Amino acid sequence: MPDRIPSSNTDITFSVPFVHRLRTTDDVCGHDYGVLGELLDAGETGSARVMLVSEKALQSNAQRLADQLAADANVELVSETIWIDGGETAKNTLDEIKSLLQAINATNLDRRSYVIVVGGGAVLDAVGFAAAIAHRGIRLVRIPTTTLAQADSGVGVKNAINYFDKKNWVGTFAVPWAVFNDSKLLQSLPDRDFRSGFSEAVKVALLKDPKEFENLAKHAKDIHDRVPEVTQNAINRSCQLHLDHITSGGDPFEMLEARPLDFGHWSAHRLEPRTNFDLRHGEAVAIGVAIDCIYSSLVFGFPEDAAWRVCQCLHEIGIPLWHPAINPIDELLIGLEEFRQHLGGRLTITMLQDIGCPINVHEIDEKQMREAIQRLDQWQQKATCQS
Amino acid sequence: MPDRIPSSNTDITFSVPFVHRLRTTDDVCGHDYGVLGELLDAGETGSARVMLVSEKALQSNAQRLADQLAADANVELVSETIWIDGGETAKNTLDEIKSLLQAINATNLDRRSYVIVVGGGAVLDAVGFAAAIAHRGIRLVRIPTTTLAQADSGVGVKNAINYFDKKNWVGTFAVPWAVFNDSKLLQSLPDRDFRSGFSEAVKVALLKDPKEFENLAKHAKDIHDRVPEVTQNAINRSCQLHLDHITSGGDPFEMLEARPLDFGHWSAHRLEPRTNFDLRHGEAVAIGVAIDCIYSSLVFGFPEDAAWRVCQCLHEIGIPLWHPAINPIDELLIGLEEFRQHLGGRLTITMLQDIGCPINVHEIDEKQMREAIQRLDQWQQKATCQS
Repeated sequence: MPDRIPSSNTDITFSVPFVHRLRTTDDVCGHDYGVLGELLDAGETGSARVMLVSEKALQSNAQRLADQLAADANVELVSETIWIDGGETAKNTLDEIKSLLQAINATNLDRRSYVIVVGGGAVLDAVGFAAAIAHRGIRLVRIPTTTLAQADSGVGVKNAINYFDKKNWVGTFAVPWAVFNDSKLLQSLPDRDFRSGFSEAVKVALLKDPKEFENLAKHAKDIHDRVPEVTQNAINRSCQLHLDHITSGGDPFEMLEARPLDFGHWSAHRLEPRTNFDLRHGEAVAIGVAIDCIYSSLVFGFPEDAAWRVCQCLHEIGIPLWHPAINPIDELLIGLEEFRQHLGGRLTITMLQDIGCPINVHEIDEKQMREAIQRLDQWQQKATCQS
Repeated sequence: MPDRIPSSNTDITFSVPFVHRLRTTDDVCGHDYGVLGELLDAGETGSARVMLVSEKALQSNAQRLADQLAADANVELVSETIWIDGGETAKNTLDEIKSLLQAINATNLDRRSYVIVVGGGAVLDAVGFAAAIAHRGIRLVRIPTTTLAQADSGVGVKNAINYFDKKNWVGTFAVPWAVFNDSKLLQSLPDRDFRSGFSEAVKVALLKDPKEFENLAKHAKDIHDRVPEVTQNAINRSCQLHLDHITSGGDPFEMLEARPLDFGHWSAHRLEPRTNFDLRHGEAVAIGVAIDCIYSSLVFGFPEDAAWRVCQCLHEIGIPLWHPAINPIDELLIGLEEFRQHLGGRLTITMLQDIGCPINVHEIDEKQMREAIQRLDQWQQKATCQS
């Protein structure tokens, strides 16, 4: 390396301030609309300019919301509601992004305008990315409509689309203007989607809140049966734990190498595309959490009975803990390298020493991982026979 | 509006920490390479993975840098240098972004890898946008090669491409990993580009540093003649003033309505596309600054002699203060609405009450603005005859 000559060096540490606004409502498309209305700042121009984008499946609720917005004297609805397909297709191509950008341009939205998006996690991701890059960021109001998005990603500060057939390969970090977790919007959710979202609640409780895990384990059958007060409390607590991690964890834009909220996700992210997204994200996470709990019990002293209680809890909620795409295991293990690559740097996987005691590890013992997966297979076969 | 029922409200203020690294070097592609090398963190894997992207016109310098990188045992160059066209074409389509993303994917860059980009502002913008959205952000090292980019945008936290024929319509805020202002890279710059970059130095001095404006006015002819110590000091001071504004100004991601560093830019942003980018950004800014100084003297008590001294300073640096595309003035004035729209909210334009005393105004008196433009026209006709 050549000799250095004196040069001027300036390292400046600075911070960018953000506000995160979370609201819990019973019917934001109806009698709770005012909670949303008051967050739409009419500014100096006298009216807040708003574009409403909704997943097609939410048509009746989104239409009620559009009616509320149209009746609000402080709001100018700039266009008809924009309907987009739900599920992973929303974020699988650039086409949806391009047409959203066109709509934003055609209606002259600016940085002080609002895009309100009603939908599941994939729709929030795609619309959020378009809103984030138009004029370097239009205000985004997320109204997540799945238990999964309400319990986890809806309150997050990420957006993404899939690219090169890789999940979330393109995206940005962007703090939403506001997030509305609304209980009515969950009512029409099919049982399978309703239940599988709680795997993220189990995951975050295992990482951060042993008491909440006990609570979830105790009430797993009530969650299965969609008992309102139980499911609402579980979603609220999960959402709060995720939000605390983002706003107080010191690394909201993931510049460090560990990503503890992604416990169980290395295999989940691999399983989803391998099933062509037939497996829901929440289902894939449940399998991933179960595998990594058992692995933790084999390698890091996580109590074995706790591992089986985690499996039992997810099973009682009604989430299947197996999928044929787990095999061949060699194919699944590729997920470790993909996970490393997306975050960058050396492999960093979160495991558990106990409930509430996560550790970051940089190596996975492949033999023990195979053993963990086989044990899960045996456990779920037994559990399925018994139920 | 419907009655509100009690709902849970959480507003959380939080901050995201960043580090800004600015280095001033004499020859980063040669004997100063070590200053760059020590910022490329080899991490746990033992080598920093680096992709070098350069404007074609910088080939000989970029090749020297590639040789340095190849010789650095801590660096793994993941591909041949990627050459892209300079100037506005780099950011006028999605094509350049798509092929950069392809290169990033093909070489498996991750968030802890580095994209080093050598080029003018437009190239830095386009490459910066691609690096910002891949994996939600790969580390970007900017090596600006124009006086304009060294004095202003290179140290900024924005990137962008033009879209819908609108300047910077798509982009993100992203803090670069490091910025290198290198004096040798400016040597091959044509006089026209070299001189016009100093309009941003004049602009920021007028806003924030009266003493520096006096300095620039005094040494305008030395800048014209490219006297090294004078031009280096001017660039360093301008860059520092811009950096201070970003890191200490309280609004690095432009969430507030004022954008004081854009003094003189409403007309500049309008002029550039109207001349099909024949007018350099620095030249357009010089005209915009001159117009707004004269307007400030007509409306806000900015001393008239100061306005003419600004014009004289820019003229002596060697930047023309007129272009036929200023007419028809009606067409130019559309720039006010475009400027409002990009930032959003009500129109907010920075004007001057005195050197070092900017004010934000929300209305422009069209008659006085026409008068200001006519006075500039007369002034420059006289100045051109005299020189």
